[in-house]
Amino acid sequence: MSGRLYIVGLGPADERWLTLEAREALVEAQDIIGYEPYVARVPLREGQTRLASDNRVELDRAREALTRAQGGRIVAVVSGGDPGVFAMAAAVFEAVDHGPQEWRDLDIRVLPGVSAMQAAAARLGAPLGHDFCAISLSDNLKPWDVIEKRLEHAARGDFVIALYNPASRARPTRIADAFALLRRFLPGETFVGLAKSVGREKEEIILTQLDGVDPAQVDMATLVVIGASGTRRIARRGARDWVYSSRKAL
Amino acid sequence: MSGRLYIVGLGPADERWLTLEAREALVEAQDIIGYEPYVARVPLREGQTRLASDNRVELDRAREALTRAQGGRIVAVVSGGDPGVFAMAAAVFEAVDHGPQEWRDLDIRVLPGVSAMQAAAARLGAPLGHDFCAISLSDNLKPWDVIEKRLEHAARGDFVIALYNPASRARPTRIADAFALLRRFLPGETFVGLAKSVGREKEEIILTQLDGVDPAQVDMATLVVIGASGTRRIARRGARDWVYSSRKAL
Repeated sequence: MSGRLYIVGLGPADERWLTLEAREALVEAQDIIGYEPYVARVPLREGQTRLASDNRVELDRAREALTRAQGGRIVAVVSGGDPGVFAMAAAVFEAVDHGPQEWRDLDIRVLPGVSAMQAAAARLGAPLGHDFCAISLSDNLKPWDVIEKRLEHAARGDFVIALYNPASRARPTRIADAFALLRRFLPGETFVGLAKSVGREKEEIILTQLDGVDPAQVDMATLVVIGASGTRRIARRGARDWVYSSRKAL
Repeated sequence: MSGRLYIVGLGPADERWLTLEAREALVEAQDIIGYEPYVARVPLREGQTRLASDNRVELDRAREALTRAQGGRIVAVVSGGDPGVFAMAAAVFEAVDHGPQEWRDLDIRVLPGVSAMQAAAARLGAPLGHDFCAISLSDNLKPWDVIEKRLEHAARGDFVIALYNPASRARPTRIADAFALLRRFLPGETFVGLAKSVGREKEEIILTQLDGVDPAQVDMATLVVIGASGTRRIARRGARDWVYSSRKAL
């Protein structure tokens, strides 16, 4: 008798961005599994088991969750943001794809959440209001030349670009490399927004442009938004500008 | 004394995907403004004014909301999905950009929501688990050749592609044109998912591929997902396949 595996999106910060569906799954679950800071965001419930692990062991965590669900447990794997966007859902299905046949019979449900780029966009105005793409700058699992190719096509296609995982201790220069590449295809005055720790106490929003952005301001908790030709800034008195991407193409 | 304007994401279907923040704003608002089917999804509250309008008058609706907020009302403009993704947030800021100076002093807050592509992805597995883009096929406001250019770069950049607004009565052939264009750049066996009316009673999910997809199956309530080279199908017994995009590049 097998259990169930929920893959739950917690949203980018506190419970204000949690959906009703996610909230209910977190109450129903017997086991909560995830990267430590995400597990810590789930309210404690008596009798619930909590397994927090390091960020780099996504596949191990996925296998642990699948094994428990197969054993009859109701398991919730938790992700910040949306588990379907650069997060745990792909890792779980990758584990299923390469795991025992029985895992394909499990009851697995992905519960979407508000992703980091959406929370960042909401703070800026509406920069993702028209055609956009999302690119992870992490080169742990894909070679850097694939990332370069995607950045080039995103720029040449005039997409608004959301950059995930823009910085890491292992490769601190990759965001600088990405900005340098984009400057070959986009005007210097292209909008750049840095949304840091959105929804958290130390939230910081920086509005700048491609020829002035300081890569040192980008850390692991930063979501970077690069504007397209239709992205506009609305100047305001005594308040941060609003930014939106026009629904009209130039 | 000015009021406040919330731009609220309702998520793709019923209240299961509503965030806590959105729920609270809908209770606080004095006026609910939006496209008729979205307004109808907001629970009735005594004393609350409801203004439902047609889908094609987004800027008029934005101006009405801004005028009311400036007059001191607490207003909620409601959108399906995420208001920041092909929805009302960009329309509101566009209205501000071209409106009276006073609108720039208003208290405008965008409340993000689960977007259609995220709900569709959750049903399929994790097809947006790696680099992806979102393109609206509506050519009401942008010329078709811009859309063609974006589709080409999305395909050549090996992005997973989410297509919004794939069909309309005014231009029923544009999804067929888009598939034909993509076939010039992508293999025939490229994954195509059609997610129809996700979260609603008549929900239907179709898994197919680029050389077999039937454009007639795509309607206005369909979110189309085109896979990338890393997108995989997991075959299952007696159940729909799961689809995910590998975090590794090929």
